[in-house]
Amino acid sequence: MSDLVLFGQQAKAASQKLALLDTTHKNQLLEKMADAIEKNSQLILNANAKDLAKAKENGITDALLDRLRLTKERVIEMAEGMRQVATLPDPIGEVEKMWKNADGLMIGQQRVPLGVIGIIYESRPNVTTDAASLCFKTGNAVILRGGKEAIHSNQQLVKILQETLEANHFDSFAIQLIADPSYEVANEFMRLNDYLDVLIPRGGAGLIRRVKESATVPVIETGTGNNHIYIDEDIDLQMALDITFNAKVQRPSVCNAVETILVHEAVAPVFLSELEKLLVPEGVQLFADKQAKAYLKSAELATELDWETEYLDLMLAIKVVHSLDEAMEHIRHYGTKHSEAIVTNNYFATQRFLNEVDAAAVYVNASTRFTDGFMFGFGAEIGISTQKLHARGPMGLNELTSTKYIVYGNGQVRK
Amino acid sequence: MSDLVLFGQQAKAASQKLALLDTTHKNQLLEKMADAIEKNSQLILNANAKDLAKAKENGITDALLDRLRLTKERVIEMAEGMRQVATLPDPIGEVEKMWKNADGLMIGQQRVPLGVIGIIYESRPNVTTDAASLCFKTGNAVILRGGKEAIHSNQQLVKILQETLEANHFDSFAIQLIADPSYEVANEFMRLNDYLDVLIPRGGAGLIRRVKESATVPVIETGTGNNHIYIDEDIDLQMALDITFNAKVQRPSVCNAVETILVHEAVAPVFLSELEKLLVPEGVQLFADKQAKAYLKSAELATELDWETEYLDLMLAIKVVHSLDEAMEHIRHYGTKHSEAIVTNNYFATQRFLNEVDAAAVYVNASTRFTDGFMFGFGAEIGISTQKLHARGPMGLNELTSTKYIVYGNGQVRK
Repeated sequence: MSDLVLFGQQAKAASQKLALLDTTHKNQLLEKMADAIEKNSQLILNANAKDLAKAKENGITDALLDRLRLTKERVIEMAEGMRQVATLPDPIGEVEKMWKNADGLMIGQQRVPLGVIGIIYESRPNVTTDAASLCFKTGNAVILRGGKEAIHSNQQLVKILQETLEANHFDSFAIQLIADPSYEVANEFMRLNDYLDVLIPRGGAGLIRRVKESATVPVIETGTGNNHIYIDEDIDLQMALDITFNAKVQRPSVCNAVETILVHEAVAPVFLSELEKLLVPEGVQLFADKQAKAYLKSAELATELDWETEYLDLMLAIKVVHSLDEAMEHIRHYGTKHSEAIVTNNYFATQRFLNEVDAAAVYVNASTRFTDGFMFGFGAEIGISTQKLHARGPMGLNELTSTKYIVYGNGQVRK
Repeated sequence: MSDLVLFGQQAKAASQKLALLDTTHKNQLLEKMADAIEKNSQLILNANAKDLAKAKENGITDALLDRLRLTKERVIEMAEGMRQVATLPDPIGEVEKMWKNADGLMIGQQRVPLGVIGIIYESRPNVTTDAASLCFKTGNAVILRGGKEAIHSNQQLVKILQETLEANHFDSFAIQLIADPSYEVANEFMRLNDYLDVLIPRGGAGLIRRVKESATVPVIETGTGNNHIYIDEDIDLQMALDITFNAKVQRPSVCNAVETILVHEAVAPVFLSELEKLLVPEGVQLFADKQAKAYLKSAELATELDWETEYLDLMLAIKVVHSLDEAMEHIRHYGTKHSEAIVTNNYFATQRFLNEVDAAAVYVNASTRFTDGFMFGFGAEIGISTQKLHARGPMGLNELTSTKYIVYGNGQVRK
């Protein structure tokens, strides 16, 4: 029996206990785990120091180093995040509606845990406590497989969580970490159908693609956002500038940032020259089609690659379009169905855009940066799904659940 | 470019038109397709005759021959089924709730089509019109891949549907059939991720397993039902007998029939001897554990295989248990999480069973045969999902949809 099968068996057994744990107990355990993380912050920082030293040896980039680095403050934030999850409403057990069928059966659809959730992620150690607490709150056992760069940090974190569960007489296999960094183990993990109910990859496009290609376990694809804002011909100029600036500059490295602006030719001259004044001081590089380039001093000519690229950086592609239809056609062709926005004063344009654009979130007169579980009011986020099955858009606690039908009868048989 | 990529491109283009088609037009087209099926029944029967002749040549079993065979009445039933789908409420466009977030954004979750649905199925030609009409009603393009035994029937059916769409100026690629029976094409179909949003296999356990193993497209697993009824110690004897009889005998070949009875030792002698009197005249073979066998004249001794098998036939496994816990442990071990039932007068036993048994449908005092989209009141059924992601239990029109967030702003940007 491989180690992973053992992990799977342990997780499955723990998930059966977790599914029956009431909300009060789950919240108490979450708070105790948060306290333990905070109390043992020095141990966590020591482990993290090992990861950082190794990473520097391997010549990792500064950006990655920053994602990997924990500080006292970041550890406290992780604990606070777990406490926050404890305060959220528990979706498990909820029956949204019940009805009586033609035979008099009372049928209700009840929220239940998924069972065992696998999470594959990259260097940020805070995903460890995030994912563990969201899965725990929803009654799911979790098997974590973090990046090898963060292995010491992750092992220390999970050790603290498991010891806390054990000290409180709960099955510590509810939260497990795969320490083996090999590809073979990752591949076996993605095909652990007998034990995993779902696999959620969190990380860059390469990781997501690898999981999608190799997994036989059902996957929730999280994702890439090659997002657009269409600036229509009839706009409030300041609003259009504010929204574009926010969607590009406020946090360019995340999947809900904007990557391409499509601007109607009628407003292109004034909008683009004003936009350039705002973006260039922020260090944003512009890549424009021929027509847009005429209104921009600093832009380079865009190539096909620019329309396709999720920059995740201070870069922006810009294209002049001649109609709403042309804008929507561009989005249909190049978009990744994550977040798409229109800025317009025209009612009919908003309705067409909302109806016809196919994406997880479609915005009228707002920044794409709102595609986020916290911003949507879910109080948590395990990722943003860009697939159409099970969950689409920001995933909160509800998206970590399944359902079952409960049926109350009085002896009914089928005719 | 392979044929399947062309199919995919055509389906994707059609799905974009279908997503915007209003309910009235969808219903009119469904009715016209139904009329055309009925009007051309002789063409369909001729095509079916070819399939039947070929099947006989190949020495197919009588049961399979019956599933393949169309009659005038069956063709009329297929048309009626399509008309019935036209009368169902259209889920597309529905926004179950909208809320205002902390920034004043109005956020709604709207039902939208999945896009392009692939269906892989076996010999019954009625799945062709069933699946086509359910996908059409929900605004999804469909690519069908039926069994090779039914190829002439399926081609004739789809030809009629496509000609009707074309005659009514709608994109006939909304409904397509893959005629190539080869395994290579099936395998390519299961990996057509750029074009297929979901793949639904409908058929026996072998087909489901093959699809699950090979597909990279998200799959909705439909399924096998190794279902149990637990007869508790405190029962209404007649009700327990009626429910057991119905769940086994009314239609033994389907996935919601019962396969194993777990009976509490306190009622085993009387319940089993009465049950045998009812089942034996119906030709049901009994496979019992040692203790149950003592109360049954005709039973053979059950082996491990009996607990594991979905008979789909007039066979029943029977085991005496000493407690509700033992019954639930058996179900946890051998069940396929489809449909599970308890018969009891004891309130606390019902609550434990409903809470602790993990299955798509859990019944109190009713036959497992009710796990069915029509019986649940959905007015339709595309299959019964035994997975936990996206849909679980009977799938009606809602389960053929996805969602998108529509967001109305007034210039909001993220702080």
